[in-house]
Amino acid sequence: MANAGGGEEVRNKQVIFRDYVTGFPKESDMYVTTSTINLRAPEGSNSVLVKNLYLSCDPVMRVRMARVSVGGFSSFTPGSPLTGLGVAKVLDSGHPDFKPGDLVWGVTGWEEYSLLSGIESLRKIQHTDVPLSYYIGLLAAAGAVGQLVGQFAKLLGCYVVGSAGSKEKVDLLKNKLGFDDAFNYKEENDLDAALKRYFPEGIDIYFENVGGKTLDAVLINMRVHGRIAVCGMISQYNLDETEGVKNLTCLIYKRIHMQGFTVRDYYHLYPKFLETVMPYIREGKVVYVEDKAEGLESAPTALVGLFSGRNVGKQVVVVARE
Amino acid sequence: MANAGGGEEVRNKQVIFRDYVTGFPKESDMYVTTSTINLRAPEGSNSVLVKNLYLSCDPVMRVRMARVSVGGFSSFTPGSPLTGLGVAKVLDSGHPDFKPGDLVWGVTGWEEYSLLSGIESLRKIQHTDVPLSYYIGLLAAAGAVGQLVGQFAKLLGCYVVGSAGSKEKVDLLKNKLGFDDAFNYKEENDLDAALKRYFPEGIDIYFENVGGKTLDAVLINMRVHGRIAVCGMISQYNLDETEGVKNLTCLIYKRIHMQGFTVRDYYHLYPKFLETVMPYIREGKVVYVEDKAEGLESAPTALVGLFSGRNVGKQVVVVARE
Repeated sequence: MANAGGGEEVRNKQVIFRDYVTGFPKESDMYVTTSTINLRAPEGSNSVLVKNLYLSCDPVMRVRMARVSVGGFSSFTPGSPLTGLGVAKVLDSGHPDFKPGDLVWGVTGWEEYSLLSGIESLRKIQHTDVPLSYYIGLLAAAGAVGQLVGQFAKLLGCYVVGSAGSKEKVDLLKNKLGFDDAFNYKEENDLDAALKRYFPEGIDIYFENVGGKTLDAVLINMRVHGRIAVCGMISQYNLDETEGVKNLTCLIYKRIHMQGFTVRDYYHLYPKFLETVMPYIREGKVVYVEDKAEGLESAPTALVGLFSGRNVGKQVVVVARE
Repeated sequence: MANAGGGEEVRNKQVIFRDYVTGFPKESDMYVTTSTINLRAPEGSNSVLVKNLYLSCDPVMRVRMARVSVGGFSSFTPGSPLTGLGVAKVLDSGHPDFKPGDLVWGVTGWEEYSLLSGIESLRKIQHTDVPLSYYIGLLAAAGAVGQLVGQFAKLLGCYVVGSAGSKEKVDLLKNKLGFDDAFNYKEENDLDAALKRYFPEGIDIYFENVGGKTLDAVLINMRVHGRIAVCGMISQYNLDETEGVKNLTCLIYKRIHMQGFTVRDYYHLYPKFLETVMPYIREGKVVYVEDKAEGLESAPTALVGLFSGRNVGKQVVVVARE
């Protein structure tokens, strides 16, 4: 096909956000459709036309599915494709920093091809000797961070115990990722007792990405002057009313430091991060587990699966391999 | 009277802890009785015999009334006098650091005279040009801290709004202590709305000594990179089950720093604190409001009153004036 602008018009499969979500997201909150797209960046614009290769499924996308989003995350637009982190290949570019053939990562659409006009988040991929999908996971410091936190903590000399939701994941943490120990929180009736079993002398550092009952059990097992890095609370995102955390007085008795953070405050450290982590990857000192869903059609299932813990490792959607 | 040891035996009024407490403490959890005491420190001991002048009523004493105390605070002993911070005068001493006539502050008994054997906490009072009772309040960094935090914040250039439980207290904060504003939280049906009224652009720093619903309302009104110093949660100490705090995901979105602390970690800074605060007191730049209950008999009522907010300012019991 050709159109007036001279570009090639092709079919473009898309994952469309149907409507705002309350409670757990369902596959039917999205649908897959096919439109067409011109593979040229419009004349005179500084847009970039990309072919999407890998898309990232992230818990924070649930926040963007709400009518009223929070924390500076914008809500998705009903009737439009979802957006999120992706790895893509530039097909055409009106922007001087990008040229056809460049591999990039950043915010893109849940579709085969995207015309990106806001490209502040787009970065060129320099090192292609690691899997490209790592750029929306390990190398984007986005998604499935627990496995990495544990490995980095081991490299720093910590005693590391992981909490995961299945036997398979527990085995993975212990046998493949080198955690000192791990347990299946779904099989523990008494999380407090479980933590006392693994940390008889208490917990110095807790990396929080669960919230709710887990945080409550951790608080009573923290040591004096313990530290809690608060990165996420996935157990709370789908609840109409979040669970109350009851043991916050522990913050006083134990003089605990709790610090919330998001990756956005630390992008200036990205070069240093790459410099640190690339050798670890190449030397096999850090292992990164991915769960790859094949094809854009599988994207809604993959995203929804995050919230039941169906994925093992970072959930990625493979749109195309090159 | 005289006894074998040669010392004078006198009547000693005492406030006895009756039994462990659940829920709100009541006056009947304590009783006043009279025993006798020898006014000499036993020969060969390094104990100190003191006449108590002022006793401090502190929220943390509720924690010590529980059978199972927490956070390193020991439970009171049923049948024995309560203990807490006090100002006292040394009558006799087996310890080389103290001699009769010395004025001291530290942990003492809720009674007219105490024989103190554990004297690690005892400090000599050097400056007597400020009210002696300040040594168990302002100068012990103990009790009624909100009024001081607000004044120190003002001295550092902050915009300060206080939350208090009566019109009288609100007036005090605004008119006597120099807060920029203050409100009566008992008259606000919607704490969130109240905070938005006083902080339309959000809160940078919250000094937490309330907990529960107040903390929840504050969390949604904190600014990005805000800080919460967690000193106490008085609203929670008497509850069988503490209120759940529901808005902790704000820690992430707003990258909030929450830090629990107790004065015990900072005793090494006490000389510097005195050096800073003494001139403020002498120049009238810091005002300290006390609520003085007269006589040991009034002590149970004074202590219990803390938890209904009956006191205005630091609650002190005057046992004797010299």
